[in-house]
Amino acid sequence: MIQEVSAQELDAQAFIAEKVEEIRAAVGEGRAINALSGGVDSSTVTMLGHRALGGRLRTVYVENGLMRAGEAQRVVALFGELGVAVEVVEAREEFFAALHGIADPEEKREAVTQTFYKRVFGRLVRESGAKHLLQGTILTDVDETVAGIKRQHNVFEQLGIDPQEAFGYRILEPLVSLRKDGVRKIGRALGLPAELFERIPFPGPALAARVIGEATPERIETVRRATVVVERLLAGSGAFQYLAILHEDRVTGMRDGKRQFGGQIEVRCWDSVDARTATPTRLPFELLERLGREITAEVPGIVSVTYNLASKPPSTIEAV
Amino acid sequence: MIQEVSAQELDAQAFIAEKVEEIRAAVGEGRAINALSGGVDSSTVTMLGHRALGGRLRTVYVENGLMRAGEAQRVVALFGELGVAVEVVEAREEFFAALHGIADPEEKREAVTQTFYKRVFGRLVRESGAKHLLQGTILTDVDETVAGIKRQHNVFEQLGIDPQEAFGYRILEPLVSLRKDGVRKIGRALGLPAELFERIPFPGPALAARVIGEATPERIETVRRATVVVERLLAGSGAFQYLAILHEDRVTGMRDGKRQFGGQIEVRCWDSVDARTATPTRLPFELLERLGREITAEVPGIVSVTYNLASKPPSTIEAV
Repeated sequence: MIQEVSAQELDAQAFIAEKVEEIRAAVGEGRAINALSGGVDSSTVTMLGHRALGGRLRTVYVENGLMRAGEAQRVVALFGELGVAVEVVEAREEFFAALHGIADPEEKREAVTQTFYKRVFGRLVRESGAKHLLQGTILTDVDETVAGIKRQHNVFEQLGIDPQEAFGYRILEPLVSLRKDGVRKIGRALGLPAELFERIPFPGPALAARVIGEATPERIETVRRATVVVERLLAGSGAFQYLAILHEDRVTGMRDGKRQFGGQIEVRCWDSVDARTATPTRLPFELLERLGREITAEVPGIVSVTYNLASKPPSTIEAV
Repeated sequence: MIQEVSAQELDAQAFIAEKVEEIRAAVGEGRAINALSGGVDSSTVTMLGHRALGGRLRTVYVENGLMRAGEAQRVVALFGELGVAVEVVEAREEFFAALHGIADPEEKREAVTQTFYKRVFGRLVRESGAKHLLQGTILTDVDETVAGIKRQHNVFEQLGIDPQEAFGYRILEPLVSLRKDGVRKIGRALGLPAELFERIPFPGPALAARVIGEATPERIETVRRATVVVERLLAGSGAFQYLAILHEDRVTGMRDGKRQFGGQIEVRCWDSVDARTATPTRLPFELLERLGREITAEVPGIVSVTYNLASKPPSTIEAV
């Protein structure tokens, strides 16, 4: 049973000092490794690990080809300014090979997870010689695993590391007593910039979850471009989350006076407190029109744009 | 070359008297037949034919299973009040058999057209013994055929009537010198109720054009129910046209706390003068929310609702 530490009772400096000590004590003179996605949890754990271990922590950013435009550069630059070297590991081909021919949402999720843990990160862990893995697990992840919302994972099994071989490996989860708001407090105290906390939630399978049907490199590029427009136009909306979804359905369009079947982008923009229930943001119609105009103008192959009108429930935040 | 008669210069009573005489002269003591869809053109030609021939005109409404809810009853009741008997011909099975397994929009259109002309109406023409067919062709139809937008049709070929056999058949097109506004003027003068002219445009392949993918009886019933909600909520919008489209894509929803893959309805509502260009109607957000709420509540299997944001071009009024 993990003892929850609420954001209110959390003394950030004392917490950081305590965790830095724990990490140092655990790793000793050895080395540790962690994967940084650029999200709040993995960014915070990277800063904690860096403070504890300095150059003995190897931080990798896995380029899976499914992230938002310019994401690798953004993460490297942001951590570079904080004095943390981030190693970008190129793995696009492996991810797209794993996603090839898969249309089912759950299978896509599984392909991304498996490729990350079993293939790419598992290989990095073994090759690095590091026996300690830092992970940004938070208490909500544990709750959801217990509740069956997320599947129970044996981390070593996920990494494709044999339980026998796993003897000697150790997972460190310094944030596991915190909720999201506690993590934000620690991240700020560790010097992470405000920009990082203001980013909207982004799903684990990244843009693979933003295409209905197969996640090919071309389709991911299409939804990536649409995401650029949506994030540009809705950054000031104050919404809880906003996203672009590439549909698989083809609809009729017209270009240069001729019929052309093309793609459709659905925009969702949500008002929500905790993502458990959500309603579409009441955007001004002028902004809705700009979304329609700029997405069809800037994203090749897209002839139609829609805006989500359904609440959660019966809808969900993401489409797949 | 057909001489156009503009709505302004059109003397409705004189036009009606002239066409009634022409129809009578052509049909003589024989019989005529026409298909009534309930649209403005076929309704007007029905009234003209009825005035000319009374009971010697057989007017059929083909129940193809693809029309809006209650359409057959509405048409029969409306013409019943005008003293015109309309015969409803049951043909749902034939249309759905022709549409079975077809997802391509053009092939669906073709299946509906062929089933109507070659099978159902062609059979009725032959069985009726009528040698005269009344058709609601207007000048815009002729223009579009010449321009290649609609295909050139030999009507007898469409009906599956051999050119040799066709000797003696005659097509009467009393509205062919008019545009839509002229037809409305004649229709009103013939006593057709205002309600009929206020109806929004509806495509030839009917609800088969309102589903992306295969038009099965179940999918048509889904989009029919969504159309009821959309027409109820948008009747007062003053828009040029509004429609519900059933997507083929499946999206994640939640019912009773459980994940459920379900369908999506896209609502389009257009401001337009002549359908050549069009923009989404700036509906109040409260109305958009009602669309989302009432469609997900009233249409089984639907967990998501969107509103079109793209203009024509690059979009088109209908989706397929």
